Amino acid sequence: MRYLIDFSYDGSLFNGYQKQPNKRTVQGELERVLSSINNSQVKLVSSGRTDSKVNALHQVAHFDFSKELSCFKLKGALNSYLPPDIHINDVKIVDDSFHARYMVKEKWYQYKINMGNYNPLLRNQIYQFCKEIDVKKLIKASKYLIGTFDFTSFASAEDKRDDKIRTIYDIKVSVIDDILIIDFIGTGFLKYQIRNMVGFLLKCATSGYDISLIPDVIKGKDRRLIGITAPACGLTLMEVRY
Amino acid sequence: MRYLIDFSYDGSLFNGYQKQPNKRTVQGELERVLSSINNSQVKLVSSGRTDSKVNALHQVAHFDFSKELSCFKLKGALNSYLPPDIHINDVKIVDDSFHARYMVKEKWYQYKINMGNYNPLLRNQIYQFCKEIDVKKLIKASKYLIGTFDFTSFASAEDKRDDKIRTIYDIKVSVIDDILIIDFIGTGFLKYQIRNMVGFLLKCATSGYDISLIPDVIKGKDRRLIGITAPACGLTLMEVRY
Repeated sequence: MRYLIDFSYDGSLFNGYQKQPNKRTVQGELERVLSSINNSQVKLVSSGRTDSKVNALHQVAHFDFSKELSCFKLKGALNSYLPPDIHINDVKIVDDSFHARYMVKEKWYQYKINMGNYNPLLRNQIYQFCKEIDVKKLIKASKYLIGTFDFTSFASAEDKRDDKIRTIYDIKVSVIDDILIIDFIGTGFLKYQIRNMVGFLLKCATSGYDISLIPDVIKGKDRRLIGITAPACGLTLMEVRY
Repeated sequence: MRYLIDFSYDGSLFNGYQKQPNKRTVQGELERVLSSINNSQVKLVSSGRTDSKVNALHQVAHFDFSKELSCFKLKGALNSYLPPDIHINDVKIVDDSFHARYMVKEKWYQYKINMGNYNPLLRNQIYQFCKEIDVKKLIKASKYLIGTFDFTSFASAEDKRDDKIRTIYDIKVSVIDDILIIDFIGTGFLKYQIRNMVGFLLKCATSGYDISLIPDVIKGKDRRLIGITAPACGLTLMEVRY
């Protein structure tokens, strides 16, 4: 029986999503609990990994279970055994042909930046930038990143995939009090791509950087053109669409 | 030279505000850093303690320094030595007669409750109640608690002070998305008073409880009349007014 789970996690106390020996990871915790309920090893296939310290409100994964349990019972069992920094929002039975990674159509990530005073209460959920940002310029700069491009300039050197062409459908910028919120919706993202785009947008919006050069930065396919990577803590996976 | 500091902290990784041997506390961390900058022991006097796991956005304390440092330099030095879960918002030089505890006129505390799905990202900042609340009834019930009363019914048995009369100037209730926010403004509060009031208000707003009985609950001066104490994580000290 193939199940799909929709789950949230606070990335701050994990060494990333992906399972690693002797390290506390989201996948490791979930597989440990699933395997214990199933009485045999369960392998979890997610929509994709998230970097260390990145948060998720609606990550999605599938797994095959030898036991047949109702979705309601399985959700209750999982939530009672999981630590408080992971939570199962929903459990569904899906067709055996469903694949949580290969069938992803769109992903929505959100990056949050505090432009006001440092707030220790939200230091693991919002990047504590604590400086003024020219929001109008940031919005103008973000428009250049919408579309289908080779995003090599914004990828991590560690991302070894040959195909670095991705489509960004939309980038929405909003401000609530001192918090700048940037929503990215696209087909999928390269390793560090969003954090590198945010670092670059912050460079554009806090300096005299000429944003009409952005198309050349994309065409340049050179990571050194864009500046620093924004911290992982500000990033949250909001939704995976199939 | 007497200094006043305005500071914030995330209560989740501390064993409360008050210094205790061999435990990580807010006062302990601050005194350690202050004493090291001053090259001799510094004693911190705050507006009052907060319970273990309670947060603060603007706690206030005073201390005497033998070194004379500009407020700007002292703030910079403190923030560079303090851990990321404490932050100094402001440093001021005050008159030697100023006293951070005795001169408090008003305190503002905020309690946040999540009525929606469990959110692991905000589990240390917002009480994850995750049930429906009759907000209108909660607002009506809260009105009975505004005024000057003997709040023995809402105090911890551990609070040994004889005088349990306090004044609550206002209780404001607001809702943003799934989050219920209750602001309490008063002369000061007994140990566990706000968390007991919140626990009681939640009982009123999620059951058939007859709220016209609240004046009798106050007069009864009996802790057993009110129900459970709401968790500390939902509570934040917002402001201390002198």
